Amino acid sequence: MALAHKGLEADIVPWRFTETSRLTFAGAEKVPVLVDGERVIHDSTPIAEYLDTAYPNAPSLFHGDAAARRFVLAWTNVVLHPALVRLIVSDIPAVLDEPARSYFIASREQRFGMTLAQVTEGRAAQLPQFRALLTPVRQVMEAQDFLGGEEPDYADHAVFGAFQWARCTSPFQLLDAADPVHAWRERMLDLFGGVARDVPAFD
Amino acid sequence: MALAHKGLEADIVPWRFTETSRLTFAGAEKVPVLVDGERVIHDSTPIAEYLDTAYPNAPSLFHGDAAARRFVLAWTNVVLHPALVRLIVSDIPAVLDEPARSYFIASREQRFGMTLAQVTEGRAAQLPQFRALLTPVRQVMEAQDFLGGEEPDYADHAVFGAFQWARCTSPFQLLDAADPVHAWRERMLDLFGGVARDVPAFD
Repeated sequence: MALAHKGLEADIVPWRFTETSRLTFAGAEKVPVLVDGERVIHDSTPIAEYLDTAYPNAPSLFHGDAAARRFVLAWTNVVLHPALVRLIVSDIPAVLDEPARSYFIASREQRFGMTLAQVTEGRAAQLPQFRALLTPVRQVMEAQDFLGGEEPDYADHAVFGAFQWARCTSPFQLLDAADPVHAWRERMLDLFGGVARDVPAFD
Repeated sequence: MALAHKGLEADIVPWRFTETSRLTFAGAEKVPVLVDGERVIHDSTPIAEYLDTAYPNAPSLFHGDAAARRFVLAWTNVVLHPALVRLIVSDIPAVLDEPARSYFIASREQRFGMTLAQVTEGRAAQLPQFRALLTPVRQVMEAQDFLGGEEPDYADHAVFGAFQWARCTSPFQLLDAADPVHAWRERMLDLFGGVARDVPAFD
């Protein structure tokens, strides 16, 4: 989304959980990794900051107040992602092949201390609480179209990233169609010629 | 805090949970209620907005981006308060007298579906998770002194209100002394001549 936001073309290289040796050149253990000429940057936020600095003439990824954005990004990491994974984690093995599937199941079962089926058991009953956790986003959407204001910025892409991950890995319906957060997600899917809508996904 | 921020003197009227009839004149079921001459306003955010409009020459309660503030206020309501109450609720009856104490215990036991002692059982083990939920505030404090920027604004007062409530009702230590959130809370306690520090509290 950050690349599309900046109007940049890139070769997207698929990568699997277990292919850590392929990231050694970047000094990274996880994706995303960006290679731009001789520059190698890893992790989403440093990549976005690099893109904004290196391509200042393209639309900015960072609008408004930096402190507010830090707040949203931290909320995404410590509230949204942990709540989301508990609703979809048992669906993810079905979209992985080996050896990533076995690695994913073993590492996540260890993290949760139970089977993945147990993590998501009765998940429909957890939906009201999950949707309540989205209230901060919903409140903003009552006043404007994007977290970034009239146009999306990196905060939108970060929060949307969580939903896009869910959309690509699980058929479980997280959002009610009448939810302003659902409408925002649709706007995000429409951005940049529908680049996010146009990937294999469940809905 | 909003009144002190605006430099306004006010008569503070104590009120107990069960004294709902005393709020009927305001069309309110809960505090806070502000009476300013012939104007009656209830609920914290409408009160703050009223004060900023009615007293425009005093320091503003609202800095920066309205959407960012909505996000922080919603986070306070749906993340911070629910996590906080689970750590301290069993301490609160001890600072209430009857009939508020009985009302509080019965209504909260019904809400949680268990005794208050059961809610907070093993709470020390929950502290790491609670402190992780404060990451959004902590991230902002790495860049500036207050959520509002160089000076506090209503977002600070709203988040601080949760901590002040805990401080006045429970001896349980929520924050590590080395936590930047702890340093922020100390700054909040120092504001306006220490008005928040100067109330009966546990630390």
